[in-house]
Amino acid sequence: MDQITILKGHIIYTDTSDSFQVLENGYIIAHDNIIKDVCEQLPQKYTEEEVIDYGNSLIIPGFYDLHNHAGQYLQCGTGMNKQLLEWLNDYTYNLEKDLHDEAYANIVYERYVNDLVRFGTLGACTFATSSPVGTACLFETFKEKGLRAYVGKVNMVRNAPDFIIEDVYDSIASTEDIIMKYKNEPLVKPIITPRFAPTSTSESLKMLGELALKHKIAVQSHLSENPAEIQWVQELYPSSENYTSVYDKHNLLGKTPTIMAHAVHLSDAEIELCKNDNVYLAHCPDSNINVRSGIAPVKSYLNKGLKVGLGSDIAGGHKIQMNEAIVRTIQSSKILSVYENHEHLTVAEAFYMATASGGSFFGKLGKLKAGYELDALVINDDILYKERYTLLDRLEKFLYIGDDRWITARYVAGKKIDVV
Amino acid sequence: MDQITILKGHIIYTDTSDSFQVLENGYIIAHDNIIKDVCEQLPQKYTEEEVIDYGNSLIIPGFYDLHNHAGQYLQCGTGMNKQLLEWLNDYTYNLEKDLHDEAYANIVYERYVNDLVRFGTLGACTFATSSPVGTACLFETFKEKGLRAYVGKVNMVRNAPDFIIEDVYDSIASTEDIIMKYKNEPLVKPIITPRFAPTSTSESLKMLGELALKHKIAVQSHLSENPAEIQWVQELYPSSENYTSVYDKHNLLGKTPTIMAHAVHLSDAEIELCKNDNVYLAHCPDSNINVRSGIAPVKSYLNKGLKVGLGSDIAGGHKIQMNEAIVRTIQSSKILSVYENHEHLTVAEAFYMATASGGSFFGKLGKLKAGYELDALVINDDILYKERYTLLDRLEKFLYIGDDRWITARYVAGKKIDVV
Repeated sequence: MDQITILKGHIIYTDTSDSFQVLENGYIIAHDNIIKDVCEQLPQKYTEEEVIDYGNSLIIPGFYDLHNHAGQYLQCGTGMNKQLLEWLNDYTYNLEKDLHDEAYANIVYERYVNDLVRFGTLGACTFATSSPVGTACLFETFKEKGLRAYVGKVNMVRNAPDFIIEDVYDSIASTEDIIMKYKNEPLVKPIITPRFAPTSTSESLKMLGELALKHKIAVQSHLSENPAEIQWVQELYPSSENYTSVYDKHNLLGKTPTIMAHAVHLSDAEIELCKNDNVYLAHCPDSNINVRSGIAPVKSYLNKGLKVGLGSDIAGGHKIQMNEAIVRTIQSSKILSVYENHEHLTVAEAFYMATASGGSFFGKLGKLKAGYELDALVINDDILYKERYTLLDRLEKFLYIGDDRWITARYVAGKKIDVV
Repeated sequence: MDQITILKGHIIYTDTSDSFQVLENGYIIAHDNIIKDVCEQLPQKYTEEEVIDYGNSLIIPGFYDLHNHAGQYLQCGTGMNKQLLEWLNDYTYNLEKDLHDEAYANIVYERYVNDLVRFGTLGACTFATSSPVGTACLFETFKEKGLRAYVGKVNMVRNAPDFIIEDVYDSIASTEDIIMKYKNEPLVKPIITPRFAPTSTSESLKMLGELALKHKIAVQSHLSENPAEIQWVQELYPSSENYTSVYDKHNLLGKTPTIMAHAVHLSDAEIELCKNDNVYLAHCPDSNINVRSGIAPVKSYLNKGLKVGLGSDIAGGHKIQMNEAIVRTIQSSKILSVYENHEHLTVAEAFYMATASGGSFFGKLGKLKAGYELDALVINDDILYKERYTLLDRLEKFLYIGDDRWITARYVAGKKIDVV
């Protein structure tokens, strides 16, 4: 017998990136985890069922964070005066090393996953650390919480301190162990995660590409974040035409579902490659500003038909809140509109990226319509004189100034989940 | 007999903009509202006094918001897709009109002032509306709460809808009434507030300048926010050399203490004028991005010796939180560092602007040192593994990711004030 869930409230989502769908006082009807109907009147056959009435609250899809580093969560908002390499050496690597310890990892990851839930992120693609034990802790924490995730054991075999780099064979073996252990989980899945081209070798990338193909596992990495890094990749892989083709030629671009974070400085050839390979670009606006990478021309990527989702990129980005990533995405595009005369992004476009586009990497998610899985947030906005505002004004207010206290319920795969 | 207040905790402030002063486990000793000593050991003569021990918390100065619109508070985070004029006509002016009603104004301003306190803003320079009654409500609300403010009745006599513009003589008369009523208040003071040059005439500006001189009252307005506005001012005041000189020639620039908001696009002549007249520029980073004005070259202003404080500019800016203004100030300067090769601002510089520089407009404020008034915030940061971090890391974390729940006590003029 199906478990029937019926939610009532003001339903808002984006079906396409150009506008919002709004249903005032509507019903969402789900059987188990699947939405069967979204409607103005409750159909006759459901009138005996319990309706969870959220009154004047908004019901929106959950947020999906396509790029962040669970292994850097303790670092959020520190070292922001530093240059990238100094930041990695003084803060990040030491922290990632400590997360090789199981007890430590359990405490940190518990806070990280709970904060994702708290702020409405119902699915995350995340980098753990190079530690198999620590990475397993992160899998277990996600499982226990009932959240969606792609969790990557980070692979890095050179150009980082000895205490966190691995032997290439150990790296591959432990990655395959994790794949075998978690590949059949319903909500939490492994993802092949070379840190980025500079900490990889052609050999390690080749073996990771083979793993991805053998087990049909998704891939995530970093791509074209800043000019110095791009130059470095060219020096390390002199036979590659460009940064993107380094991943492509090792079967790590689009052979299986792929996310590339940043993509601030892509050439036309690289844009074509990403488009043809159905790559998801994870736009990380706060991070790109904080570490002075530049601003990715997202509007132009969308116009060219690329798939773009959003990433908090903690801890290069400082805020785990995806509503903040939405706002900074709009703001960044406005800056490009001033400095480079680009068209700027609308609220609907940025919202679409964080919900429908990001959600589609995880499955039929990110829209509140029949056939999609029921992942949703209930927003009880803490504002005076609600009657002044349209429902879309109220949504915009939540995105711009709301916080976790405005989110009063969270549903993942049809189940209500709680914040600790 | 003096009231003695002794606070203990980790004391952090900026004395100059280039670095932080840090005193671990220090004492702040105040007699009434004045700090007499800040020290590592409690002097003998105070050992019988009560010490309020904040343990492992940080004690920092309060924030001072040099530019915002109380009259637009309900609008925060709405209409952010709109162009400036559409935004004013569809949202702002109607809202400002409603705040002519006393009951309505009381409710909205109560929320606004309480939120200032909540987020650690201990002094604000704010625009009410053109309504004398509504403006008086705002004065009373600040007084009741015990917060510092400069409150301006907005003067506007043209180029806005009929329902909120005023006759020039009424505008001046009601402004003088408010000055007479509030000029001797200790914490809440009137400030002459022409909305900006385009809604003024040479006649109205002249009379406001006379009022400022006659009563020795501070002045605030908007200056050089975006290129279209600058062009418009040139058309409206054809005999003025530039935007800044419009205010200057009407005794509204530096004859009394003056704040000019935005100043995104100043010519060298205008920079000289502002510097010579000791004008405070209120940098409003979120607003300048949201309405696509550009980014003010703050680092270069500081290098040239201009006084710069920060403004939330709600509701062109969406967040009333000054820690967010600090972060966006740093981020904006980083964007200029990428696009125009400027040097970017440090955490210390942005913190200095929001505390010591902004505070100096209100008096001897914004530093935790002897001779200054005791305005302070206590920060109990909600982070794991505090021992990993230096005190400055913890402050930076609060600025980047903290919220009102991290602020556990607020002192204004030596008195603890509460959030409702």
